[in-house]
Parts: sequence; C-alpha cells; structure tokens
Amino acid sequence: MLKSDYTAIENYMTECMNDSAHDREHVYRVLYGAMDIAKSESGVDLDILTAACLLHDIGRAEQFADPKLCHAEVGSEKAYRFLLKLGWSEERAKRVRDCVKTHRFRSGCPPESIEAKILFDSDKLDVSGAIGIARTLFYKGQVGEPLYRLDLDGTVSDGAQDTEPSFFREYKFKLENLYDKFFTTRGKELAEGRRRAAVDFYNSLLSEVRSEYETGKELLERVIENDNGK
Amino acid sequence: MLKSDYTAIENYMTECMNDSAHDREHVYRVLYGAMDIAKSESGVDLDILTAACLLHDIGRAEQFADPKLCHAEVGSEKAYRFLLKLGWSEERAKRVRDCVKTHRFRSGCPPESIEAKILFDSDKLDVSGAIGIARTLFYKGQVGEPLYRLDLDGTVSDGAQDTEPSFFREYKFKLENLYDKFFTTRGKELAEGRRRAAVDFYNSLLSEVRSEYETGKELLERVIENDNGK
Repeated sequence: MLKSDYTAIENYMTECMNDSAHDREHVYRVLYGAMDIAKSESGVDLDILTAACLLHDIGRAEQFADPKLCHAEVGSEKAYRFLLKLGWSEERAKRVRDCVKTHRFRSGCPPESIEAKILFDSDKLDVSGAIGIARTLFYKGQVGEPLYRLDLDGTVSDGAQDTEPSFFREYKFKLENLYDKFFTTRGKELAEGRRRAAVDFYNSLLSEVRSEYETGKELLERVIENDNGK
Repeated sequence: MLKSDYTAIENYMTECMNDSAHDREHVYRVLYGAMDIAKSESGVDLDILTAACLLHDIGRAEQFADPKLCHAEVGSEKAYRFLLKLGWSEERAKRVRDCVKTHRFRSGCPPESIEAKILFDSDKLDVSGAIGIARTLFYKGQVGEPLYRLDLDGTVSDGAQDTEPSFFREYKFKLENLYDKFFTTRGKELAEGRRRAAVDFYNSLLSEVRSEYETGKELLERVIENDNGK
C-alpha cells in the first residue's frame, strides 16, 4: 500500500473516532492481529485487509447516537465512499466495504472473503484473554453496569442465569464461549493461547467476592441480632 | 446494633449513593471484609465499625461535583450529623466520624482507633487482587482513560515510567504496591491471598498487547514498504 494511502486512511479513522483513545487502541490491535493471522493464510490482499481493519469501527459514533443503527453497516458505507474519493477502484472499495459490513457476526451476514474472515477473527481476538476482560470491564464502567448481581438468597451470582446486565453475565454469555467461533487456524490458536488468563481472572474474581459476601454476611447477622435487645 | 438503626444507616447510605450501583457494591464488600478482619482483633466495637463502613463513602457525590473537596472529610461530617439525628450519643457519633475521616490515607491523618484501622484495611482490600483490577478498569472506563501508553519507539509501555494516566500506570503506581500498607494481620493476609490474581492479570495483559504490537507492526511495515512503488 502506498504510504500516502495508509496515512490518509489512518487520518480518516482518527477523525471518525476522535472522542475515544480506547477505540483507536482497539483498531491498531485489530490491524496488528490481522497481519499475524494473514501470515498463515494464502491469497490475502494485504491492502484490502489493512484498509478494512483501520476502517472497521468508523460507524461507532453513529450507532452510539442512534442505537437502532448498526455500526458495521454504517461504517461499511462510509469506508466505501471514502476509498472512492481517495481514488481506489470501485471493485477494491467494495471488497473493503464487504469486510467492514460482515465483521460483526449476525445470521445471514457472515464474512466470505479471506480478508473479511481475518478481520472478523482479529476483532474477536480482541475479546479473548486478558484484553477481552479489560475491554469488557472498561465498557461496563462507561455504561455504569455492575460487576455482578445477587441471587435471591443474597449469594453473588456467577452470571450464568442472570437476566440483567453485569460483567459476570457478559463473561458467561459472550467471553467464555467465543473460542470456537474463529474462521482461521491462526486466529483460533492466538485466542487459545490467551484463554487461561481470562478463565483464571473470572474464577479469581468470583471466588474473592463470593467468599467475602459469605463470611461477612454471616458475621454481620450476628452483630445485628446480638444487639437486638439493647 | 438495633436492626432499625442498621436499616436507617443503610437507607441513608443508599440515598447518598443512588446514582451508582458500583459504589454500593463496594460499600458492602468493605463492610463484609471488615467483619472478617474484626474477628481477629480484640476490643472492636462492631456497631461503630458497621456504621463507619456503611457511611465511609457518602461524601463521594460532593467530591465528584467539586474535586477540591475530600470525600472522606465531607463524608465524616455528614455521618456525624446523621448519627446524632438518629439518636446516637455525641461520643459514639464522633468515633464513627473519625473512622470515615481517616479511611483515605493522607500524611498527618492516619487511622488511630482499631475500628478506623479495620475500615482502612478493608477499603484497601477492595483494591487488591482481581477485584482491585476490575474496579480500576471500571473506573478507567468511566473517566475514559486508556489501558496503556506507547513509548517513543512505539512499544507498549509497562506503566512504570508513564507520566500520563493509564491502567498500566495505575497498576504500577498503586495496585502493585499496596500489599505492605495494611494495619491488621488479617487484612494483610486476605490481600496476600489475592495478590497472585492481580499480578497474573497484569502480566498476561501486558504480554498479549506487547506481542501483538511487536509482531503486527513489523509485518505492517513490510506491507507499506513493499507497495511503495506501485
């Protein structure tokens, strides 16, 4: 890719995301992860892949402003128009558009090209391991959702049966189960190498909090009851 | 403690913190942890301790609205006035006030009574281990600070030399070094039991991100240079 093209695409991405350093960090991790995955695949057009990675989340602001919008769809159209303006051919701009459009898995719209599969996997990779935990906690802080819920008996719920949002619910419903959803061998391998860190963190956090509630609540009940008659 | 007193204090705490489920979760963990620590100490007035734990962060909203205010100082006065209104003696309300005032360590104002030391330790305990990592990431999300910074050569910084805020900086400057700052033996013991989880998470996250940047950037440089002449 021409360096001037790379810089123009990068600048456009930065412009679209200038309110979030966090989102930009994510974009570079997806780009770098994609380069690693691409090494093990044949027939990859690295220019298409690079542009798709840089631009994959440029529809975030629109989705944030109107949650009915899908950032992958909005972003794919923005990417297409931008690349045409930059002088890319319609065929190549379309290939980037397809990658961006399918990076968020929804039935009926899975990634098809090898570049789209690599983007999809590298984006998923950023939800695996310790980085997936960190990003999820960061997001829970942004939207003010709790770390855990309590069961009816006051036990800290492990998230598996939760109906209301929490970090533990997100872990059980999303983070724990993503490891078999990769299209590429290298993507799956990288994610597997990170899996232990996520599992250990979840188990440690659940154990710390549960034991604190169990021990503390029992002791507290004695404090309150013992003095009932004073 | 009379159950009616406990409920009244709990309701006042909830009222002061009704914008943050996250802060209320923290209050209960501090209360339960304090009960555990108190078991191993002699001469603890559990009513003073319980009231102090429930009320220790009720000055948060004031500090948030005006960062020049110290939530420990504001909260201690609020707690004192509330307990007097609830019918507590001035002597006992003052003892709670002192605990709340000194729960945040600043030179010249360390905790003195055993109840104050236990509150201090239990509050610190909630910054140890996996829960300390989770709360710090949650907070970084709330204020929009990044996970890491890059060194001048583009390497992901481990946080130790950072001058700008980041999760890694917070880890190196605060989370990593809190384990020798406990007043009670049980507080220190509980924190030590959680230490490994925090260390492992930090190391995993740093390693995941660093290796992704290193590998990816090197491969990307080839993509950009190879096509320079097209």
